Amino acid sequence: MASALLRRQLAISLHINLRFPASGCRYVSKAAVNTQADYDYDRPLMKTQVPGPRSQELTKQMGQIQNATAINFFCNYEESRGNFLVDVDGNRMLDVYTQISSIPIGYNHPALLKVVSDPNNASAFVNRPALGILPPESFVDKLTQGLLTVAPSGLNRVQNMACGSCSNENAFKAMFIWYRNKERGHSTPSDADLSSCMINQTPGCPELSILSFTGAFHGRTMGCLATTHSKPIHKLDVPSFDWPIAPFPRLQYPLEEHVRENAQEEARCLEEVEDLIIKWRHKGRPVAGIVIEPIQAEGGDNHASADFFKNLRNIACKHGCAFHVDEVQTGGGATGRFWAHEHWGADDPADIVSFSKKMLTGGFFYRDELETDKPYRIFNTWMGDPSKNLLLAEVLNVIRQENLLAEVTRTGKALLSGLYELQAKYPAILSRARGQGTFCAIDVCNGTVRDRLILQARNNGVILGGCGDCSIRFRPALIFKEHHVHMFLNIFNDLLAAHK
Amino acid sequence: MASALLRRQLAISLHINLRFPASGCRYVSKAAVNTQADYDYDRPLMKTQVPGPRSQELTKQMGQIQNATAINFFCNYEESRGNFLVDVDGNRMLDVYTQISSIPIGYNHPALLKVVSDPNNASAFVNRPALGILPPESFVDKLTQGLLTVAPSGLNRVQNMACGSCSNENAFKAMFIWYRNKERGHSTPSDADLSSCMINQTPGCPELSILSFTGAFHGRTMGCLATTHSKPIHKLDVPSFDWPIAPFPRLQYPLEEHVRENAQEEARCLEEVEDLIIKWRHKGRPVAGIVIEPIQAEGGDNHASADFFKNLRNIACKHGCAFHVDEVQTGGGATGRFWAHEHWGADDPADIVSFSKKMLTGGFFYRDELETDKPYRIFNTWMGDPSKNLLLAEVLNVIRQENLLAEVTRTGKALLSGLYELQAKYPAILSRARGQGTFCAIDVCNGTVRDRLILQARNNGVILGGCGDCSIRFRPALIFKEHHVHMFLNIFNDLLAAHK
Repeated sequence: MASALLRRQLAISLHINLRFPASGCRYVSKAAVNTQADYDYDRPLMKTQVPGPRSQELTKQMGQIQNATAINFFCNYEESRGNFLVDVDGNRMLDVYTQISSIPIGYNHPALLKVVSDPNNASAFVNRPALGILPPESFVDKLTQGLLTVAPSGLNRVQNMACGSCSNENAFKAMFIWYRNKERGHSTPSDADLSSCMINQTPGCPELSILSFTGAFHGRTMGCLATTHSKPIHKLDVPSFDWPIAPFPRLQYPLEEHVRENAQEEARCLEEVEDLIIKWRHKGRPVAGIVIEPIQAEGGDNHASADFFKNLRNIACKHGCAFHVDEVQTGGGATGRFWAHEHWGADDPADIVSFSKKMLTGGFFYRDELETDKPYRIFNTWMGDPSKNLLLAEVLNVIRQENLLAEVTRTGKALLSGLYELQAKYPAILSRARGQGTFCAIDVCNGTVRDRLILQARNNGVILGGCGDCSIRFRPALIFKEHHVHMFLNIFNDLLAAHK
Repeated sequence: MASALLRRQLAISLHINLRFPASGCRYVSKAAVNTQADYDYDRPLMKTQVPGPRSQELTKQMGQIQNATAINFFCNYEESRGNFLVDVDGNRMLDVYTQISSIPIGYNHPALLKVVSDPNNASAFVNRPALGILPPESFVDKLTQGLLTVAPSGLNRVQNMACGSCSNENAFKAMFIWYRNKERGHSTPSDADLSSCMINQTPGCPELSILSFTGAFHGRTMGCLATTHSKPIHKLDVPSFDWPIAPFPRLQYPLEEHVRENAQEEARCLEEVEDLIIKWRHKGRPVAGIVIEPIQAEGGDNHASADFFKNLRNIACKHGCAFHVDEVQTGGGATGRFWAHEHWGADDPADIVSFSKKMLTGGFFYRDELETDKPYRIFNTWMGDPSKNLLLAEVLNVIRQENLLAEVTRTGKALLSGLYELQAKYPAILSRARGQGTFCAIDVCNGTVRDRLILQARNNGVILGGCGDCSIRFRPALIFKEHHVHMFLNIFNDLLAAHK
């Protein structure tokens, strides 16, 4: 129970060290010693195979209520702490996937429990307002002291939303509205616009498009889904839009050893982008915006160079398209910068940057020019949830106080160099280790072996996620430290050594 | 502050009656006496025009951050209680709009504050899981003891989602998937399906459609928006789908005095529905599903008869289309039944019923046949929020314990008969009073006068909302009692009497 947990955490913060000695380190010379004076567990503890009997029983029950075939196992969130997720069978696992990259500072962080237990905050949890018409008194301050303190360069405005998909959907809408007003030369729709839009027809509902990339993932609602191209299962049987899809560069890793070939591949993709923009303009479906992830995540952790993104941004400018950087998975610090696009070193990286997951609330930052001209154009009932902004403010405090971005950079270096060593040791199984900060990935020889390794890792106390056809993605919380890296590497090394 | 509020509520529950005598009743014979032994305020209390100076200052600040032109005023949610919303200038208003119909049992209900202050629940507020893969141990119970206790007739399954739009988007996807599998005769996609869907093309992304109605509102993400036809501002400049739009019956009120003409109008609309289904089949865009609100809300509080809906459901069956009833605004008790469609008296009312708003969480109930065949087809990172299910469970308890559906029916009768009397008294201004439970509306002679009346009512301590071109919609919480009705009628009557 959380109250017991809070007491325990307080005890720990009083330097009562309850930790067991670190388990033996078989892979790396550095011992897996926990130097973090925190509320974390010290190591995995496995009691059953995962899913265990209780998880299996609950999954069966859940199958009576809804499709439960994606459920991995059921969790005991009350007992989970820091980097460790505890399941309902009492298994405690090092979490390197964190609810699809959405837990910023670990489970049951004391700072967040304090936010919930503060009676002054209770109202925010029980009175969810229609933020677009009746915001709470504190909301301007919450935005100013929260989201706006991490606003990307050049983007002075922010629109709160509730999740990643609605953030991207509304970012698309903002780009369409901006583009049409640019075409009009003013913001007053014609009578034909007003009457035709009511029946889904042009000119009111124009044939505009968003250019996206092969392997992209931008969400699953129907606008977003038209720009998602990571896996057929996400798209199959759902009507879509005839929008252009450019090739995302397929680079060779390590990037620094393949500069020339990679630059050629990126140039090819950029050329294709321009061709598609022109082609779709001729088709009568002009590209209003380009959407891209700084690192394609669900699609396989595909990277591109800073030059690629800066050139793409220039192409967008040249052709009058808005440039939307989707940081739903990459944002919030995991790459060692708060936003992954900061690695590009651009003063003017984007027109729109969308976020969710680790940010706990959805939304998008945007340039002044993208502001809508009238009320109710970017709108819905809730427009987010102020209780999430309360929690986010505390997450940002912890990131700053604990200097977590520098920590992520340090931890990420250890993780990536460990992955390099593993792929050198097991070249028949592993390849293409890559990453920025702790936002790392490695390829496995095929999807079947990848899936098996993930299940074996879980049974040995490490939760990993897959992405693309045969990649493993690493998505730890920002409080994942070097000793957690070594803990993971030891367990993973043993699995690989035993691999037949 | 909520803690002070909680103490005050406890004091009140000890029968320390702090209430002022009810203000004089100028409209109805029944005095506006508060018989509710609860935590509510007793009456409005106005200190400034609304928005007052503090709200204006905050709106100006908000305008620097995002489009703030839809903001009515800023609220002090900590001080709001029951049916009364308090603003940042100290004005206390009777809330007959409740955050666009989304506050089920009033502000700061003690039962909900207790949920938040219970340390056992803290974990649910700080560890938001990826529910589709790693649900909490209690989630099956929460669904069984919560949402499933109010499952519509014939719908045994429920999919949790986060908001109204994503509930409808995913309900549409479920209908498309079901329809395509029905066409295939099995659930195994072809190679052509799998490859074409990745580039947004047929057959993988099929040209299927959802039939919707003029005046409908089903949300603002791009799939939902293609079925929304209430106002141009929602749709303008956003690309859409060529989907069929049938006329929603335009009935005369009171319904019981216009049975014959209304039946004719409904028959005309149903005929058009069948024509459109056939026409779109011939166009190569078959109708996979029909979506409709039991009472069109945002589009102007348009009603139709039980026969209309039952016949429409039969037409859907006859043509092999799924039938989706969107109860996002009508659901949760405001019509005097838990779901508005219960008024139809049908054993088999729908294939899918979606919800959000008063339910605090989004989602949709569905028939077994609509279950998806594979994992990850109806999926996203969060799939809802277990902390909202905790609060919903408590809302359902309160509804049962306080017999709120019967109360809503009683209150609704008082409200509707009051509206009838007002429209008889002011026939040049008011007409078409209509409603079910407290889910009522009345038309004003034109949109300008409607908007002015809403602003005047606000300055006199009553918050109302508009809908359609010239309607006022009444959306009080389920704890709105007869004395609140009389409070509203008195204030509104004075405004109308003073109307030039």
